[in-house]
Amino acid sequence: MPAVVVVGTATAVAAQDGKPEKGPLVLKAQGSFFVGGETKNVGPNNDYTIHQMYVQYMIPVGKTGVPVVMVHGCCLSSKSWQQTPDGRMGWDEYFVRQGHPTYLADQVSRARSGYDETVINQVKAGTLPPSSLPSIFRIGHQGTWTGFRFGPAFGSVYPDEQFPVEAFDEFSKQIIPDINSQLDPTANPTWTNMAALANKLGGAVLIGHSESSAFPPRAALIDPSGVRGLIQLETGCLATLTADQYATLARIPILIVVADHLAAPPPSASCVTYMTQLRAAGGDVTFIHLPEIGIHGNSHMMMLDKNNLQVADVLLAWIGEHVEGKNGK
Amino acid sequence: MPAVVVVGTATAVAAQDGKPEKGPLVLKAQGSFFVGGETKNVGPNNDYTIHQMYVQYMIPVGKTGVPVVMVHGCCLSSKSWQQTPDGRMGWDEYFVRQGHPTYLADQVSRARSGYDETVINQVKAGTLPPSSLPSIFRIGHQGTWTGFRFGPAFGSVYPDEQFPVEAFDEFSKQIIPDINSQLDPTANPTWTNMAALANKLGGAVLIGHSESSAFPPRAALIDPSGVRGLIQLETGCLATLTADQYATLARIPILIVVADHLAAPPPSASCVTYMTQLRAAGGDVTFIHLPEIGIHGNSHMMMLDKNNLQVADVLLAWIGEHVEGKNGK
Repeated sequence: MPAVVVVGTATAVAAQDGKPEKGPLVLKAQGSFFVGGETKNVGPNNDYTIHQMYVQYMIPVGKTGVPVVMVHGCCLSSKSWQQTPDGRMGWDEYFVRQGHPTYLADQVSRARSGYDETVINQVKAGTLPPSSLPSIFRIGHQGTWTGFRFGPAFGSVYPDEQFPVEAFDEFSKQIIPDINSQLDPTANPTWTNMAALANKLGGAVLIGHSESSAFPPRAALIDPSGVRGLIQLETGCLATLTADQYATLARIPILIVVADHLAAPPPSASCVTYMTQLRAAGGDVTFIHLPEIGIHGNSHMMMLDKNNLQVADVLLAWIGEHVEGKNGK
Repeated sequence: MPAVVVVGTATAVAAQDGKPEKGPLVLKAQGSFFVGGETKNVGPNNDYTIHQMYVQYMIPVGKTGVPVVMVHGCCLSSKSWQQTPDGRMGWDEYFVRQGHPTYLADQVSRARSGYDETVINQVKAGTLPPSSLPSIFRIGHQGTWTGFRFGPAFGSVYPDEQFPVEAFDEFSKQIIPDINSQLDPTANPTWTNMAALANKLGGAVLIGHSESSAFPPRAALIDPSGVRGLIQLETGCLATLTADQYATLARIPILIVVADHLAAPPPSASCVTYMTQLRAAGGDVTFIHLPEIGIHGNSHMMMLDKNNLQVADVLLAWIGEHVEGKNGK
């Protein structure tokens, strides 16, 4: 990692919420499975399975809240939602400890879901030109630091930064190649699989982040029947839907959360349009800019920040009120 | 999946061990982290991290046994050790329930560990020829069926087969691209990372399977100090080591397990050499051909077979006797 220079005044101490979360984790069940997948013939007597989505889960004992499905962003895997780079509790365990069955999905084309390598092999064999290769993207250390808003320049840190920059080297190990470009951008199979997963669970809140922040509404537009709530972290606003599509989404509570140190004051123009259309269709849309509710210094990776459980509590409170109907709503 | 034809007489009923494993799973801790990794410069002001190894773990409450590290085989991920394709308990949870902190590692270049995509991008950009591309391997449905010994031909099943062939479609979703060919075959970073992990844990038993079945001894040859036992599933015998190398391995208890329906009676010639050399150096080597101890019909994927917990008990008993010194050894 670079030498870390704190810009400006001393960093505020990041307060965890002080809840007693150190006791044993008691699970009714844990495991993993796949959703979706289709057979692709790649040669004589040789079939592969592609487009499957790997999901791992933990279910707490006792009375449970609505299941929650978490889908990671660009160049990342479900590791995003797990133990933080500096070893603190991740959102996966915290949501379980708050009573929610929690499902982490690796996007199709990433991590344990695998990808379709056949074009790469065909180019190697000379049967397709190099231009056929998928673009494989990943964000480098320097781009991550500023793009994920750890500080204004590589190695410098915002005074109130909540990301555990001392663990940047560990965080950088989460960043892996992103081959989403090989998927149909108008019909990403992860969307279909998320909708299918929500149905399989008998109803779920879908959470997306960054690259996947519009995946929850995209999944609901394919099949809204199992989708009980949409949480979009760090934007993902869809400003060019049809009236019918807005009407579909307006039947589902939606929460949008953005963090601190954005270049321009939120909400973005696309989010203004999205929210205006949804509300005109009768939708229940909540937009939270964390600093405006007194939570400062969060990065793009709010689920890993030092106050990650405080941010989780914002989501949990919204789920309680808007999805589960607690507090009189 | 193909139409399933049972060859010969009726399939024997696969007996689970009848232990009460249905209660809550109580964990002292669970989480994930990375081992290893190095920085690679891929352009101006653009660094990536490569060769890191993703590890997820569960630690049971109470007095624990020796930690166990499980590394999957070809074209697979740590999913191998988790919930089976037909929904039964995986070895990960079973070992935890038997008191062992359990660590699942995705091989470097696979799944959540990521891979190095830079050559692929350089070929796409025209700065390297297509011949530079790594060979990416995966075994197709048909090759899996016979190669993993589910039956003698695609869609037919051995009479005593223990693999849950009715869940073959689900199993096929575990099979993902294997880009190990991009790694140095004489110094796979997964070996180094496994040795480092064993040290980090203060001692561990390393388990490899198939492609990774020689990874435990390879890790021990890099640094034996944290390696308390080696378990090699479905061969991986190293028949061409030096006397010094055999002497190093001879200080660690070693278990080799092979399953049923092999083309030739085990042990293979390489395993005979390996065991002879280790025993000559004073090593404690156990070779188990499952049918010879009365456990019939197991496939290459013994950790997913219907009697997977019975097979796990064979490993656990060996760990107890040869690593933990129970039963007077």
